[in-house]
Amino acid sequence: METGLFITFEGPEGAGKTTIIQRIFKYLTSEGQSVVITREPGGIEIAEKIRSLILDKNHTMMDGRTEALLYAAARRQHLVEKIVPALTNGQIVLCDRFIDSSLAYQGYARGLGIDQVLQINQFAIDGWMPHLTFYLDVTPEIGLERINNSKGREINRLDLETMEFHYKVREGYIQLIERFPERIKTINAEQPEDDVYEDVKTIIKQLLMI
Amino acid sequence: METGLFITFEGPEGAGKTTIIQRIFKYLTSEGQSVVITREPGGIEIAEKIRSLILDKNHTMMDGRTEALLYAAARRQHLVEKIVPALTNGQIVLCDRFIDSSLAYQGYARGLGIDQVLQINQFAIDGWMPHLTFYLDVTPEIGLERINNSKGREINRLDLETMEFHYKVREGYIQLIERFPERIKTINAEQPEDDVYEDVKTIIKQLLMI
Repeated sequence: METGLFITFEGPEGAGKTTIIQRIFKYLTSEGQSVVITREPGGIEIAEKIRSLILDKNHTMMDGRTEALLYAAARRQHLVEKIVPALTNGQIVLCDRFIDSSLAYQGYARGLGIDQVLQINQFAIDGWMPHLTFYLDVTPEIGLERINNSKGREINRLDLETMEFHYKVREGYIQLIERFPERIKTINAEQPEDDVYEDVKTIIKQLLMI
Repeated sequence: METGLFITFEGPEGAGKTTIIQRIFKYLTSEGQSVVITREPGGIEIAEKIRSLILDKNHTMMDGRTEALLYAAARRQHLVEKIVPALTNGQIVLCDRFIDSSLAYQGYARGLGIDQVLQINQFAIDGWMPHLTFYLDVTPEIGLERINNSKGREINRLDLETMEFHYKVREGYIQLIERFPERIKTINAEQPEDDVYEDVKTIIKQLLMI
């Protein structure tokens, strides 16, 4: 009895996901739509506990595959407890990062393999793929600059060292766009915020026929 | 540089796995072999924490797939931190339950699907399949009777209610034997303990040529 609409937002840090999601939420709500905003672990107790295990700084020994399985477990529980009930209730779900983040970051950039990380995530989501995914595309330099500006500092040596990783993340997302061309819509997130918002809104309006 | 031998022991509760593993450990040690006994989570801190998450009684909401992913995560970490180092060190590892338990209990008996649970576990073990697996076969009635006798009580109503589940577990193991005939050796564990031990020992001796 699936009746809602499941929309996810992807992209690197500094792409402006949070701002756009808030604006889309306001727009859809003003159109009389029932909308839920969420992001993993989404306040779900089991998922929160799994995430705190992953982020525990004492766990320097944690293997990359262990981590990927834990992310998939947290995703599963957040999906079952929060996303699926909203969708079966006919609501629109706007989710900040979902399966594609694992595929781009862990599957591609960390080298575990997109296909392998996809398999464990397909087990986790059991068919509940997003109907629509916005990939907010910015080059790592611009994304990083935005984060740094918001923190009132300039790009430092450490940032540059991780630049290679961020380029790999972007390469990963580009592979996903080629793999899921129907689902993933690329938005040029180097545009002014208003233009990014309009691009996203136009696609959602077409989909909802509003 | 894999040089050790990875042996797992499977079967229902009451099959006598623990006793047999101890006797095989003593035998192999007396033959001059370097042997490690382990069972998940094996004292590995991250794996212990994952297990305590799974077993937390407050988590009545935990979904079956979340649980399967968490078991796979704990397995991964135990494998990486304990089993792989022993094997690369040339040791024999005797492990009480491993991948087949997840396949029989969660994949088959709980209905998640053997193939699906196999996929996430293949991601977790990344090629480190056991070289040899002993399936200690007992009917659920005898297994349950042994456990109850050791607790000084008789089979109760609750035990009988779960009998159907234990039959499904056994059916699951039988499917695994058909799927992995080279790796899994079935031992009649309804025999006297000494005979079970001899059957297991004979197969290990052949393998080690001792």
